[in-house]
Amino acid sequence: MFQGNTFGTCFKISTFGESHGSALGVTIDGCPSGIELDLDFIRSELDRRKPGQSKLVTPRKENDDFEILSGVFEGKTTGTPIGVIFRNTDVKSKDYDDIKDLFRPGHADYTYFKKYEHRDYRGGGRSSARETVARVFAGAVAKQILRTQGISFTGALVQVGNIKAIKRDWDYVETNPVRAPDPDVTDAMISLIEERRRARESVGGIVEVRAQGVPAGLGEPVFSKLSALIGGAMFSIPAVKGVEIGDGFSLVEKLGSESNDEMDKNGFKSNHHGGVLGGLSSGEEIIVRLAIKPTSSLPKEQDTVNEEGDEVKVTTKGRHDPCVAIRAVPIAEAMLALVLVNLWMEGRG
Amino acid sequence: MFQGNTFGTCFKISTFGESHGSALGVTIDGCPSGIELDLDFIRSELDRRKPGQSKLVTPRKENDDFEILSGVFEGKTTGTPIGVIFRNTDVKSKDYDDIKDLFRPGHADYTYFKKYEHRDYRGGGRSSARETVARVFAGAVAKQILRTQGISFTGALVQVGNIKAIKRDWDYVETNPVRAPDPDVTDAMISLIEERRRARESVGGIVEVRAQGVPAGLGEPVFSKLSALIGGAMFSIPAVKGVEIGDGFSLVEKLGSESNDEMDKNGFKSNHHGGVLGGLSSGEEIIVRLAIKPTSSLPKEQDTVNEEGDEVKVTTKGRHDPCVAIRAVPIAEAMLALVLVNLWMEGRG
Amino acid sequence: MFQGNTFGTCFKISTFGESHGSALGVTIDGCPSGIELDLDFIRSELDRRKPGQSKLVTPRKENDDFEILSGVFEGKTTGTPIGVIFRNTDVKSKDYDDIKDLFRPGHADYTYFKKYEHRDYRGGGRSSARETVARVFAGAVAKQILRTQGISFTGALVQVGNIKAIKRDWDYVETNPVRAPDPDVTDAMISLIEERRRARESVGGIVEVRAQGVPAGLGEPVFSKLSALIGGAMFSIPAVKGVEIGDGFSLVEKLGSESNDEMDKNGFKSNHHGGVLGGLSSGEEIIVRLAIKPTSSLPKEQDTVNEEGDEVKVTTKGRHDPCVAIRAVPIAEAMLALVLVNLWMEGRG
Amino acid sequence: MFQGNTFGTCFKISTFGESHGSALGVTIDGCPSGIELDLDFIRSELDRRKPGQSKLVTPRKENDDFEILSGVFEGKTTGTPIGVIFRNTDVKSKDYDDIKDLFRPGHADYTYFKKYEHRDYRGGGRSSARETVARVFAGAVAKQILRTQGISFTGALVQVGNIKAIKRDWDYVETNPVRAPDPDVTDAMISLIEERRRARESVGGIVEVRAQGVPAGLGEPVFSKLSALIGGAMFSIPAVKGVEIGDGFSLVEKLGSESNDEMDKNGFKSNHHGGVLGGLSSGEEIIVRLAIKPTSSLPKEQDTVNEEGDEVKVTTKGRHDPCVAIRAVPIAEAMLALVLVNLWMEGRG
Repeated sequence: MFQGNTFGTCFKISTFGESHGSALGVTIDGCPSGIELDLDFIRSELDRRKPGQSKLVTPRKENDDFEILSGVFEGKTTGTPIGVIFRNTDVKSKDYDDIKDLFRPGHADYTYFKKYEHRDYRGGGRSSARETVARVFAGAVAKQILRTQGISFTGALVQVGNIKAIKRDWDYVETNPVRAPDPDVTDAMISLIEERRRARESVGGIVEVRAQGVPAGLGEPVFSKLSALIGGAMFSIPAVKGVEIGDGFSLVEKLGSESNDEMDKNGFKSNHHGGVLGGLSSGEEIIVRLAIKPTSSLPKEQDTVNEEGDEVKVTTKGRHDPCVAIRAVPIAEAMLALVLVNLWMEGRG
Repeated sequence: MFQGNTFGTCFKISTFGESHGSALGVTIDGCPSGIELDLDFIRSELDRRKPGQSKLVTPRKENDDFEILSGVFEGKTTGTPIGVIFRNTDVKSKDYDDIKDLFRPGHADYTYFKKYEHRDYRGGGRSSARETVARVFAGAVAKQILRTQGISFTGALVQVGNIKAIKRDWDYVETNPVRAPDPDVTDAMISLIEERRRARESVGGIVEVRAQGVPAGLGEPVFSKLSALIGGAMFSIPAVKGVEIGDGFSLVEKLGSESNDEMDKNGFKSNHHGGVLGGLSSGEEIIVRLAIKPTSSLPKEQDTVNEEGDEVKVTTKGRHDPCVAIRAVPIAEAMLALVLVNLWMEGRG
Repeated sequence: MFQGNTFGTCFKISTFGESHGSALGVTIDGCPSGIELDLDFIRSELDRRKPGQSKLVTPRKENDDFEILSGVFEGKTTGTPIGVIFRNTDVKSKDYDDIKDLFRPGHADYTYFKKYEHRDYRGGGRSSARETVARVFAGAVAKQILRTQGISFTGALVQVGNIKAIKRDWDYVETNPVRAPDPDVTDAMISLIEERRRARESVGGIVEVRAQGVPAGLGEPVFSKLSALIGGAMFSIPAVKGVEIGDGFSLVEKLGSESNDEMDKNGFKSNHHGGVLGGLSSGEEIIVRLAIKPTSSLPKEQDTVNEEGDEVKVTTKGRHDPCVAIRAVPIAEAMLALVLVNLWMEGRG
Repeated sequence: MFQGNTFGTCFKISTFGESHGSALGVTIDGCPSGIELDLDFIRSELDRRKPGQSKLVTPRKENDDFEILSGVFEGKTTGTPIGVIFRNTDVKSKDYDDIKDLFRPGHADYTYFKKYEHRDYRGGGRSSARETVARVFAGAVAKQILRTQGISFTGALVQVGNIKAIKRDWDYVETNPVRAPDPDVTDAMISLIEERRRARESVGGIVEVRAQGVPAGLGEPVFSKLSALIGGAMFSIPAVKGVEIGDGFSLVEKLGSESNDEMDKNGFKSNHHGGVLGGLSSGEEIIVRLAIKPTSSLPKEQDTVNEEGDEVKVTTKGRHDPCVAIRAVPIAEAMLALVLVNLWMEGRG
């Protein structure tokens, strides 16, 4: 558990950097040698996570340009650690002067202060969503590797506030600014987000990510079950307060015979288990859902205290997403890819 | 992730053993020296998990007697690994002869076969809930250590099928056979479980576990957030398909200002975050809920295939719980205690 | 580094137990499924380490019988953890009554007391060579796996006191009680050991272990070089005070052109590097030497202090080896096998 | 063992970068918060390792300027990962054109080729001593932390070829270009190195490093003994072929009563054990010696083969140290500091 900045075993990533420091960085340790990194694909994945991609997300401009410092020679990976940095360019630290010694409700300010005492109060430091740029880079490399094994990924925002997507039209997802998989609810989702923004409020959402083509048998009993690794990975994403696999919480109200997935000679007749059975992949599509809480940063006055314990009012200015769940989609896909690439590499033998 | 039979860093546990082999075992590596183990408390915790504790659970008789092989000298821990074994006594392997080459729906049979090819087909092997006896033992030691720090635990079954507990009367929980925290719904829960059993069916539930007295600042950004560790630990429990912290999935439908917990000079004014904020403990009560699917083992005929791929019918005989969620309560508490004792020990410095 | 009772990644072993407690144990986590364990070979390896095998070693009788508790079903491994225990049978704790509160020179008594305060003072506890029975068991399984890859092991005692073996007759090693590889020095080695015993003294030795058939490229730059893993593994064996690979310390006095191993179309023309080059295996025979200090336990009066700091005299009675290096040969082979099986399993992909 | 680019538990460092790529880097994960880094001390440590510090070492000019990218805010550490990069400035790749497809004797060329197939053939890539700049940076931070605990370090070159230092005058070490601790042999050491250089040869040496003020009880039985951790750490340094602790190999020829260190009320009466007893620190000075082989890179024609297996001649041009052992002194100290800071942080509880 120590030093939670590292994730993975065979394909191990470590991230460093604060949102308002010099640079974010990621080291990928364990990438096989001889791979020609698909830089266009990496850039397209980073663009999906990028702030400023539509009116619905934060206007903070991060071009997310990266520099690869090591591990690639003559265009191909060498098997040594791939060191990558992302310079922070659009750092407006002034935005944070008012809040430097107080704790924004719903933020990590208070808990970081209790843990570290000395903290970078500008924009969340390590707890900022900015850190996830490193995960998306590494996830893109993981996806590239898994693609050669026939494993692919999809993700969408399936609920915003109380607006739920019914359909799953994966081709439609990236054509609309909320990443809805259901054309029938896109407008309602957009309206709700804009309404919340106007009301100086924010809104949560449910992200669904899936992986296709995963072979059966991935996961390690008993503490590193595939479900446990997915659960841990997803809960490491900022603002996640719930995770479910397959039919998840709704299984509680089902009969045993309804929730068991029967088999015939073609395989499973249904997939209530979401691709994970007994903690191992079953060969069925992996289905994971994440509950993302409403953005904590609000341009609305709230009660809080400062480092001295005095009661004060706070209004978060900065530039924030009214619905962070939109940008959480590629992040959740990246984490799922990172879980799977590790298990796949472990199991190659 | 490799070899998922180990959990923890400072207080590291490793479990071994199959449900129908010679013995289950657990090694606790990192227990501080000089502790007089509270064997009565350990036994009482094991009894809470034990089969046969009421008519509502499996009549399989495991006395769960343990033998401590090492790490304790003159009644006190020495700081060296504590090796413990639990002999399997009530092993009726014959019950499993009919199912030895087929895959029970909802079970790990298929996925273990795909992973290992050679498997102990009797009763689930490592995937059996029998393995959790080792966790409850280790969790009891963890609780004993944390008790000296003022950290305590509560757990209950807050939903069975569609019957939901509203109240949280923690003193009442262990006085009723379903571990309900709400006297108003206990009878309905019991009735539902018995009804399902008569119908050769099973039922799921939601377990809620809490920890009081946890200091602020536990958890390690960014991948080993307290939420990530809890998520991973809970999803490692058999039959868990969903995990949420604090208000969890219900936060999705709330306003940002509703879900943020404001502070005043007395601390947090509410606890929607469930004791985890920015991935670190906030000092508030930690609240976790787990969705437990209906027991997979059903005395009802279901479709499946055998190892050769032939379509067959299966009826699970054995002796099974109609609602495994009842016995999952002490297991979930144990896992929460194991997460916290590790973080507490890491952070002592 | 935490809890040093675990070794390895893919083929991970954990040992527990004290020399004078109920039992020693080892868990092997990561052994591939479907392997029929060669129990005769395991027993023969244990016999090589066993006390009482000749007049030159301690007469303590441990039959080293083992019980496999898990991970093996119908005679073959299942891929789940293999739990093994060795009951302690010839425990004469009385031998240790005189020394219970004082620190034997050259022993771990003082350092364990400083670390743990509460310690099992009988016979060294975890620091006893008794613990290595667990390593030899696991090493035998590792050797069995590596044998299928054409990897084999040899080991001998190449120096006792100032008596050095010149020849390396590997077939001769196990036919003489000191495991000398050179018939010309065996008698001298035996005489020296007996002379030291009569003088209530002890003697050190140099153990040499080799591995044949190791493919090139094993080891992980930069901190887990093969040399680093071997160095760490060998220094974990009781009484080891020095380790060298290939020509080791003697390279210091050589020319660069003498110590470099040139290549021709048949490969390396020499093997001064001992099979490890740039931290990775080169495909040449791996050659490692360990300096084993003279047995600390002496039936001779020595100065020491007790737990209160009073100056006292101590004479270690017990039953001890005058030259522990003899029994260190199979232990060193086991550790080398454990290093290699892990690297080989990691690299299979 | 996987991905050997990470070292440590509580104070974990990861290094990345090749000698002739864009940059070297190191991430320090686990440095306590609130520490004002002593940049002058860090620079002085880097200077001790730096090429070009005297006529006796390689004239390659690396200014070893570093950039701290994260983990430090307002001059003090925040407890989050400290990311540091060192740009490679004096990269003369042309020097390496002649050798791009052949294997230099004594180098990692062959083994890296066998492991990774695709390799950065310029100057050793990851196996270059250039990588150790990252270790020395991290080691300097470790030393700064340990200094507050009264732990200090010394190191010297105690043997060059067959010239052995007898005295240990630690104040003298950094005043002479070979880091000899004995004024009586400095000139002879220098002459030998220059003689070898003129002869297009190289020479090995023995480095001795010590730590003072280390409390008793550090190290973790049984596989992470202090001796095992030191052994592993030292063997991870390029060109190390042997490691010994305390009297090391010379103990083999001693009597048991000579090698045991007796105690009186003032503590140990001698320190043959070199500060490590039973695998744990004893409170005595820790003494470690490393055998460094002669520099592999020789401006002398040697036999080798190329990637196709053809026999060829090779003369290493580049700019190389005739005796790398001189610069190994601060590297060995850094590794010892990294071992100790981890154990000290683990044991603080």
